[in-house]
Amino acid sequence: MPVRLDQSAADFEQQFLSLLGAKRETSIEVGDAVEKIINDVRMRGDRALVDLTNKFDHLDLNQTGIAFTQDEIDAAYQETSSQLIGALNHAYKRITAYHERQLPKDELYTDDAGVTLGSKWNAVDAVGIYVPGGLASYPSSVLMNTAPARVAGVERIAMVVPTPNGVVNPTVLAAAKIAGVTEIYRVGGAQAIAALAFGTDTIKPVNKIVGPGNAYVAAAKRQVYGTVGIDMIAGPSEVLVIADDSANPAWIAADLLAQAEHDKSAQSILITPDAALADAVEKEVERQLEILPKKHLAGPSWDDYGAVIVVKDIDAAIALSNRMAPEHLELAVDDPQALVGKVRHAGAIFLGHHTPEAIGDYIGGTNHVLPTARSARYASGLNVHDFIKRISILGCTPSSLSALAPDAVALAEAEDLQAHGRSVSIRLNR
Amino acid sequence: MPVRLDQSAADFEQQFLSLLGAKRETSIEVGDAVEKIINDVRMRGDRALVDLTNKFDHLDLNQTGIAFTQDEIDAAYQETSSQLIGALNHAYKRITAYHERQLPKDELYTDDAGVTLGSKWNAVDAVGIYVPGGLASYPSSVLMNTAPARVAGVERIAMVVPTPNGVVNPTVLAAAKIAGVTEIYRVGGAQAIAALAFGTDTIKPVNKIVGPGNAYVAAAKRQVYGTVGIDMIAGPSEVLVIADDSANPAWIAADLLAQAEHDKSAQSILITPDAALADAVEKEVERQLEILPKKHLAGPSWDDYGAVIVVKDIDAAIALSNRMAPEHLELAVDDPQALVGKVRHAGAIFLGHHTPEAIGDYIGGTNHVLPTARSARYASGLNVHDFIKRISILGCTPSSLSALAPDAVALAEAEDLQAHGRSVSIRLNR
Repeated sequence: MPVRLDQSAADFEQQFLSLLGAKRETSIEVGDAVEKIINDVRMRGDRALVDLTNKFDHLDLNQTGIAFTQDEIDAAYQETSSQLIGALNHAYKRITAYHERQLPKDELYTDDAGVTLGSKWNAVDAVGIYVPGGLASYPSSVLMNTAPARVAGVERIAMVVPTPNGVVNPTVLAAAKIAGVTEIYRVGGAQAIAALAFGTDTIKPVNKIVGPGNAYVAAAKRQVYGTVGIDMIAGPSEVLVIADDSANPAWIAADLLAQAEHDKSAQSILITPDAALADAVEKEVERQLEILPKKHLAGPSWDDYGAVIVVKDIDAAIALSNRMAPEHLELAVDDPQALVGKVRHAGAIFLGHHTPEAIGDYIGGTNHVLPTARSARYASGLNVHDFIKRISILGCTPSSLSALAPDAVALAEAEDLQAHGRSVSIRLNR
Repeated sequence: MPVRLDQSAADFEQQFLSLLGAKRETSIEVGDAVEKIINDVRMRGDRALVDLTNKFDHLDLNQTGIAFTQDEIDAAYQETSSQLIGALNHAYKRITAYHERQLPKDELYTDDAGVTLGSKWNAVDAVGIYVPGGLASYPSSVLMNTAPARVAGVERIAMVVPTPNGVVNPTVLAAAKIAGVTEIYRVGGAQAIAALAFGTDTIKPVNKIVGPGNAYVAAAKRQVYGTVGIDMIAGPSEVLVIADDSANPAWIAADLLAQAEHDKSAQSILITPDAALADAVEKEVERQLEILPKKHLAGPSWDDYGAVIVVKDIDAAIALSNRMAPEHLELAVDDPQALVGKVRHAGAIFLGHHTPEAIGDYIGGTNHVLPTARSARYASGLNVHDFIKRISILGCTPSSLSALAPDAVALAEAEDLQAHGRSVSIRLNR
């Protein structure tokens, strides 16, 4: 049974804080093991990849090669059903169209003081994309991680995917082909992150690494941060549904379960001012759970981390949501647009009764790589800005330099940086 | 003596790679010590801050209080010269004006499929700014770190600054007052980062931490990343000057020394097609170095990490610069704008003969917090985007949901996520 909270209860604040603070992940201490793996790959390159893949994935890369060949990728594409290829292409097209609007413009202007100022955007040269193996090897994630990089203009997109015992999801390779991934390697874990960050004979180093992974992958990303850029450290996924009496309990239940089926540490929460709706949704979840293939994951997720919160009104629901900063926020009300302005912290908003989160997971166009575990308080979902960077531009004329010089020199002297001041004043003596 | 490289030499590529790979910082292994400090602050809060500040800063916070009082801040402002207050205000105004143009617009549109898409930007609620104590306690850095946060709309800006033996730079407090910092605490080191990330009775937790610090501060930021957002891990600073025969050797030398005076691990590089200019600049550096108060820092920096590279033409200079991705890039040529388009990787560009980097350090308007140690390959200087985050918006109507549903369900089924597919299809059966 999920927890049921009522805002009118005397101990509500305490219970809400306990819900906010609940840890859904036991962090494993793998830092030392990961450090050893990274050093091994730095020292021995491809030979370390062969040995570590033998050990962890039971696969002999000397037999298979480290990189997938174009023939292997094409074969995977061929064996994917045309319906699925059509769906992947449709999704990729919509994701690309949405992300294209995120490209910023370069700027150059001269201000009142006669100073030229501006900014110039360039793509990162090379990006690495980590794709988990096994259960969580999702073709949709390949599209979501690759599309913004392609839109940004990244030239080299290197994908790594572990293939335990040599098994790979062919649809993942097909998605990579559709998305324009330039190279694919059958390595995973911390060793794959190390190879992308530092390079080996086969895998040239990249400048930024994105994509989710297990505790070893997360620890490796944290350790190579600085040598390369990284995206966020992803945690277990969550949805928060805000619904009023206009909502359909069966639909809300389906959305809560779609989140819960990801894994046992996923979290699904309903907040509503309507206690009757809360009851009806709880009943519907139990009913739909019975016939769900992933009952073994969704059941524990809902029982352990699910929550149903009855509040006094919709504004109170939004206020609690802002404190939670959910990854996904569904506004299951008749006029969702009226609430959007009040949302301060969330990864993505899904508007109204006909926008289940799953539409955004696949084909809506928005990105499904979103900040988890309350990090929407400071982080954004994956977007084009993750793959471009900004160069600032500054230019003075003799006269604008003269105008700014006295205050620049005063500040330099206050900081005891005489050579700074001198580099300004030396230009005034002509 | 700095290294002198000539592109026409047979071993040039090898020498350039060795310059690129030179480590200017010995990384101290402080991870374990930092982990203990963070845990201590998490467990004991203010009491840990008192004990650690006693130990590291020889200051009794029980006597002074952890927070600076408004009276103390006002007194520091009063004792700052009016010339300096004027310079700080001038700088802050210019920095603010430049950063205001970085604010993105919210967006909401409906595409051909009838799907509503958009994005909405919100400021981070609370930000922590780390200001080093001692030598590197720079008022200009207070302005540079705070201005983009203020422009973004951040409500709470908490500054921490260690005050060894109780000594603080009053100009730093004056700058904080001018920039609108909302609270200032006399703590530093890993303990200050821990307090900002997890909160104590006195210091409420923030959502993001920015600002440079020593190895302990850097390690602490790495460890709390995920609990809060962090900015880049800053390394030693560097300047690359590209100059042709139109450049003034004395001015270039002054700029190289302005960089070198920061500390012994700073790096100053000149690339020029003009061997005579290279000779003249080297001579000028030696001459100016003699009379420089910070000769003890600038001398070793120039001798150990300085470099003068003679190339065949300006395009070759830009190509090498793109491989280095320098923090600061000066284009000391007559027509710098013609080169800007060719620059792919740099933190900031300074245009022409009359724009010494120091103008950008203080008063140009651009930010002086820039990506060091070649991280401009994937990172930007500090800007408004570091203090805002993006919520994506997606909305379907019954008919646009019907149009997208088949491909969404096909992808969900390919990923074996039946509840995802069901959350879409259940809405079609009415």
